[in-house]
Amino acid sequence: MENYARIADTGKPRVVVVGGGFGGLELVKALRNEEVQVVLIDKNNYHTFQPLLYQVATAGVEAVSIIHPFRKIFEEQENFYFRMAEVENVDCERQLVETSIGLIRYDYLVIATGATSNFFGNTLMEQKAITMKSVTDAMELRNTILDNFEKALQLDDEVQVNSLMDYVIVGGGPTGVELAGALSELRRHVFPKDYRELDFREMDIYLIQSGGQLLKGMSEEASKKSQEYLERFGVKVWLNRRVQSYDGFTVTLDTGETLFTRTLVWAAGVTGDPIKGLKKESLLRDNRYQVDVFNRVAGYANIFAIGDIAAMVTEENPQGYPMLAQPAMQQGQQLGKNLGKLIAGQPLAPFEYTDRGTMATVGRNHAVADLKLLHKEYKTQGFRAWLIWMFIHLISIVGFRNRLMVLLNWMWSYFTYDTGNRLILGKKRENIPVEETMDHKAVE
Amino acid sequence: MENYARIADTGKPRVVVVGGGFGGLELVKALRNEEVQVVLIDKNNYHTFQPLLYQVATAGVEAVSIIHPFRKIFEEQENFYFRMAEVENVDCERQLVETSIGLIRYDYLVIATGATSNFFGNTLMEQKAITMKSVTDAMELRNTILDNFEKALQLDDEVQVNSLMDYVIVGGGPTGVELAGALSELRRHVFPKDYRELDFREMDIYLIQSGGQLLKGMSEEASKKSQEYLERFGVKVWLNRRVQSYDGFTVTLDTGETLFTRTLVWAAGVTGDPIKGLKKESLLRDNRYQVDVFNRVAGYANIFAIGDIAAMVTEENPQGYPMLAQPAMQQGQQLGKNLGKLIAGQPLAPFEYTDRGTMATVGRNHAVADLKLLHKEYKTQGFRAWLIWMFIHLISIVGFRNRLMVLLNWMWSYFTYDTGNRLILGKKRENIPVEETMDHKAVE
Repeated sequence: MENYARIADTGKPRVVVVGGGFGGLELVKALRNEEVQVVLIDKNNYHTFQPLLYQVATAGVEAVSIIHPFRKIFEEQENFYFRMAEVENVDCERQLVETSIGLIRYDYLVIATGATSNFFGNTLMEQKAITMKSVTDAMELRNTILDNFEKALQLDDEVQVNSLMDYVIVGGGPTGVELAGALSELRRHVFPKDYRELDFREMDIYLIQSGGQLLKGMSEEASKKSQEYLERFGVKVWLNRRVQSYDGFTVTLDTGETLFTRTLVWAAGVTGDPIKGLKKESLLRDNRYQVDVFNRVAGYANIFAIGDIAAMVTEENPQGYPMLAQPAMQQGQQLGKNLGKLIAGQPLAPFEYTDRGTMATVGRNHAVADLKLLHKEYKTQGFRAWLIWMFIHLISIVGFRNRLMVLLNWMWSYFTYDTGNRLILGKKRENIPVEETMDHKAVE
Repeated sequence: MENYARIADTGKPRVVVVGGGFGGLELVKALRNEEVQVVLIDKNNYHTFQPLLYQVATAGVEAVSIIHPFRKIFEEQENFYFRMAEVENVDCERQLVETSIGLIRYDYLVIATGATSNFFGNTLMEQKAITMKSVTDAMELRNTILDNFEKALQLDDEVQVNSLMDYVIVGGGPTGVELAGALSELRRHVFPKDYRELDFREMDIYLIQSGGQLLKGMSEEASKKSQEYLERFGVKVWLNRRVQSYDGFTVTLDTGETLFTRTLVWAAGVTGDPIKGLKKESLLRDNRYQVDVFNRVAGYANIFAIGDIAAMVTEENPQGYPMLAQPAMQQGQQLGKNLGKLIAGQPLAPFEYTDRGTMATVGRNHAVADLKLLHKEYKTQGFRAWLIWMFIHLISIVGFRNRLMVLLNWMWSYFTYDTGNRLILGKKRENIPVEETMDHKAVE
């Protein structure tokens, strides 16, 4: 006997959306007035505002302020159904999603599962590194940082103490840059007060980037300024280097250089997070589904993909759109309209991307922004970019209450030079025992 | 070779305080101007404001708003040292505390470890019940409640659905009363919006109390009114009943009655949480250390105990003071002064308890309070008591930032009839599989 998940049949075409990230959320919203039943499946009961994960990791804002329960977001949307479940497989022939709570039938399936960290097959590094893809990751990093200092108090071997106080961040994209900047602020204003017994001149923050510049994809001005700011804040920006291995203690670079750290943050490559059951030919080399200009997955009539997991390969865009919030949201909105048209038997409208620009913040009063307004480019760095960054992020957070909490947190931090509560609450990364790393001198 | 924890020797007498609850915190504060080195040991890096744990469990306030890191609280106190560690034993002869980070020498030792839930030896119940002693407990309860509803959506057996939707709270003290009241508010205003597919007329909240009244220790008016309010809110208050067993599904009472629930909250008995190494004779039957009027543990000259773990047995107080925040805080303050006197060779002042009264809140606009001001008693119930309850709790929370956040949360909830974010984030209780409980009809 097959086990079906219990979801009422409303008699309307059922759109099953897998994943409630930026794309999935916009899609569900866009379907609110359509004659469909929307079933959102996500493994969490909340949406995560990923751009602020680095602030959760650095105690800048509370985890709860950047996540919002789906049931609350769509409280007023009558055609919305939510199921907290893991997707295991798709039976495309029978139009069934196989999940941890049973089978879910679909008329239209939208895959919005996003991306996951890419360790390029290095499983030891995958085990030992901390990623920044979920609020659980970010809280783990916060707990680990604070716990490291508590442990550093108990050691006298200089290399051991430094391995606990030093941080290596891999990847010079926005996450890496923002995290490095935030850590440098904590080092200056907060940690020395909390841990008076430690010498924070010993705390080093490395930002390792494989290419020759930070914030690849942004303007040269943005790349240069962000590096200048970070270096002014005492971050060691190491360009043109790749991390080859990390065992939880020793970082080895392709230049032969080694670093000792118990905390390596992996903010480098990402790859699509596909689901099982679709034809292999639909998937491109970077694990993204090949979709047409209507976000339809290659080879399927009623399966769609949006956001990071979708590669809309066109002549102008041989790589698909960048894996960012903006394309995901716009695709979600567009697909919502198109599904309505599809059901009504009307012709679909092709997706057109409106690039509004990108930005990254480095720290107090310092950010870089490449904006596009009415097809004109505005590049700005420093205080003005920082204000724009804050404004844009604040209005993008889901929920008035969360917005208010984040604003209050930011104002508090700005005027007091203090951050949120430095709490070790929940999971933290367990270090390799000191004894197992005492042969470190041989490596040096 | 013995492993000592690294703590600088400041050349001053060292006071080691085990536990940073209400008593420990006040003690450390009271020692700020004394010529001592204060070492606080706690297994967490934060103080917990326990009276609001029930609001964390019911998504009323965020966990982070009621906990505050010790290092932050005592940032300005020069003689303060903190170590995050578990205490394993005390070597009273050599004046050493054995901890998870090594040995810590003391000149004066203060035990402020508080109380723990008392299951009276019922280990199955201990495994299956959820307690309300820490912020981790409270978050687990919140996650479990929300997860239960997600699961209830997937079942059609009526008893199974009810076992997920019903709550049994054991213990009619403030925690039990407040939790039952808060759950009934969620049932009325919040859950039906979040889970439109469930019928919340099916959600029962039982409050089981072994004695003949709620809020034992408070006035008769308070007991009666709290029961009246709870029953008005639809809570099933069952007096004069004891829970005999709970296996994760079936609750058996001493009356022979049975209830089915997957969530039993144990807010009944507490017992002291002593540490190993002290003479057995110092410990009274309820696991509290017998202390004299200076909080000195019987049989020791330089070991003290304060708060829930201390039983200051006198003629007027054959049971010691009640296990509440007030006696703990006052003992902490008094012992701080006395330790200063002891070191200066001055005579000590005996502890005198000033009872300022007790209160409990039942829900929106409803609380009961027995206040004592200038040795006069004021009893009040209803809206006025509720306002007093809020004011007293708000000013008692540690940290201006936390106070502000809690106030904003409360104002938000009051005007919107909504609560904080209903997030399933972190640990939750795993239910016994449905198949293993399908013989339930035999029990009925």
